Amino acid sequence: MYSFSVTSPTLLINEDICRQNLRKMSEKAKKHGLELIPHFKTHQSLKVGEWCRSYNIQEITVSSIDMASYFAPQNWQNIHIAFPFNPREVQRLNELSEKHSLSVQLVNEEVTALLAEKLKYKVGFFIEIDAGYGRTGVEVSDFGLIEKIMRMAKTNPNLQFKGFYIHAGHTYHATLNEIEEIHQQTKAALHMLKDKYFTEFPGLVTRSGDTPSCSLMDDFEGIDQIGPGNFVFYDLTQASIGSCEKEDIAVALAAPIVDIKKSKGEILLHAGGVHLSKDVLTQANGKKNFGEVVLLTKSGWSIPSKTSYLKSISQEHGIVQADATLINNVKIGDVLGVLPIHSCMTADCMGSYMTLSGELVDHLKGNPNHSYK
Amino acid sequence: MYSFSVTSPTLLINEDICRQNLRKMSEKAKKHGLELIPHFKTHQSLKVGEWCRSYNIQEITVSSIDMASYFAPQNWQNIHIAFPFNPREVQRLNELSEKHSLSVQLVNEEVTALLAEKLKYKVGFFIEIDAGYGRTGVEVSDFGLIEKIMRMAKTNPNLQFKGFYIHAGHTYHATLNEIEEIHQQTKAALHMLKDKYFTEFPGLVTRSGDTPSCSLMDDFEGIDQIGPGNFVFYDLTQASIGSCEKEDIAVALAAPIVDIKKSKGEILLHAGGVHLSKDVLTQANGKKNFGEVVLLTKSGWSIPSKTSYLKSISQEHGIVQADATLINNVKIGDVLGVLPIHSCMTADCMGSYMTLSGELVDHLKGNPNHSYK
Repeated sequence: MYSFSVTSPTLLINEDICRQNLRKMSEKAKKHGLELIPHFKTHQSLKVGEWCRSYNIQEITVSSIDMASYFAPQNWQNIHIAFPFNPREVQRLNELSEKHSLSVQLVNEEVTALLAEKLKYKVGFFIEIDAGYGRTGVEVSDFGLIEKIMRMAKTNPNLQFKGFYIHAGHTYHATLNEIEEIHQQTKAALHMLKDKYFTEFPGLVTRSGDTPSCSLMDDFEGIDQIGPGNFVFYDLTQASIGSCEKEDIAVALAAPIVDIKKSKGEILLHAGGVHLSKDVLTQANGKKNFGEVVLLTKSGWSIPSKTSYLKSISQEHGIVQADATLINNVKIGDVLGVLPIHSCMTADCMGSYMTLSGELVDHLKGNPNHSYK
Repeated sequence: MYSFSVTSPTLLINEDICRQNLRKMSEKAKKHGLELIPHFKTHQSLKVGEWCRSYNIQEITVSSIDMASYFAPQNWQNIHIAFPFNPREVQRLNELSEKHSLSVQLVNEEVTALLAEKLKYKVGFFIEIDAGYGRTGVEVSDFGLIEKIMRMAKTNPNLQFKGFYIHAGHTYHATLNEIEEIHQQTKAALHMLKDKYFTEFPGLVTRSGDTPSCSLMDDFEGIDQIGPGNFVFYDLTQASIGSCEKEDIAVALAAPIVDIKKSKGEILLHAGGVHLSKDVLTQANGKKNFGEVVLLTKSGWSIPSKTSYLKSISQEHGIVQADATLINNVKIGDVLGVLPIHSCMTADCMGSYMTLSGELVDHLKGNPNHSYK
């Protein structure tokens, strides 16, 4: 059984669950007439990219030029870099856009002016809109800035306006009612902007990104494209929001048990912040949760009826607050699975995956050509 | 100037500060008659390992067999794996211990029995003692277990008892008074254990690890060896404890400015959790701090008199709450430095360093032969 081959902390990827998540989101997109352009920052894997081909996915989203160059050899119809463009990377953009169709995100005049001056090949751009998240983007009502960016871009035919992009990241810490409210704001903002600029730019599209809205909402009026990322793996944060069930989580850290303290109900795992990241959920009882234990099986893993969770982690150590049934049925040297709080970060920490049949799956961070930024 | 060569997030390492931290700790160890056996989990770098040679360092500490195998080619007198030994890695231990002097940490009978049965070559071991931290180790008063481990080990002459090890990790969240109290407990515990077992094991040594105690305390009676790690870089957590000044922090993330929102006093950096890790400090005003801004200069970086800090980070984004002087003197495309909250984790996220003269410095995570784990 695959877990026998695990000697040190290893990130397991369940291809079936992963493909099921891709299929569901792809079918939902089709049902609502949306184009699914998934964000690859979650898996950062060429192999998972291949899996996406089976689900009518032709364009992808990434978060850096480095990630774009990692996926470029897969010849996607377009790679969108969903991050306010970093002006120090114009040269790399010119190199990559000579052979590949790319789009970037613009949020200010300065970078628009720089691209208008320096772009050698066609590159599309979205104007990122802040409809309330407050992280990045042009304020939705700031038509002055929106139009300055549009005008500035027109001075270089290589810089082609594609539309408006909103990432409502505040849904990641919201209740269902709040997510509905945020989703309404997103739709209203994109709808308004499309109406306002459609005559001038008949081809413009609107795109929205967050996994909770894409998973939980059922009305996407005003939205043409969705770019969720986390849904491909999901995680305990998404399960706590209700975006998924714990059974939909596609990755688990396989971690060896190095000590057991029955009197304290504690299991010590080789599983720390360098493996899982330091992301944490605060439980109803106020206690911190750095990940939840699953039992590794021949065919993957199973979720115990009673929850055992990582109550604390340091760089390499993780302490499980263990349910009695669990602690009475494991021994030092066994391997437990841990469902991550934030799968994007856990995958980034680990830098590779192992399938349930024991094959290595690539991740950008584990790729020698990309490990030195 | 080196920062001109930075286009994407890059972890800068200041060799002078790093060597100064090594020199100070080495001199302090000498002054107190202690052997300094630094923990390399902080830098995980062969280059920084080379620097250590100049400061009378002959033995090193690591946190995994993987890290031990990374540093083995440097032929240290001994490499101590300061983590409860993972029984699934016996074969790798046998492979590595054939040519290299290693020691491990034991906290239970089961793994001791396994090593007694399987060890092919000489391997030293410390019994890890829990003197109050509560993360791992044998309870200091549990002489029954301590002696079971000793007896079990004696059945295989390859398994050689070296002494007792305490990592008082709870000093990382303590006040100076609390650190003094914890340090007293550590000294008392090690002193008592040495007295108790010295006749039976005349060669036994005692070792303690945490950076706050090693940096701040001045009485190490009962302790023979110290194994701090973080001190080589320090970070804002250590500065907040008082273990160092901000000027002693040897690494800073160089991060490009991608947007500025003057009205909100915000600077958007390409600097997120995948670069800095999600470690956070809560400030006196209750606000979260994910890192502090420094100004890059020809010779390194300078600390502004008024603090600007990262008030929030996501996977790739970091939002700086900027002081007025800072925001009025930077432009989009400039590069700022960010002092990390937890340098060990930031280095592990980045997987490489750049010196102030623009040379690449290795890190285990960025090493292709070690990136799949």
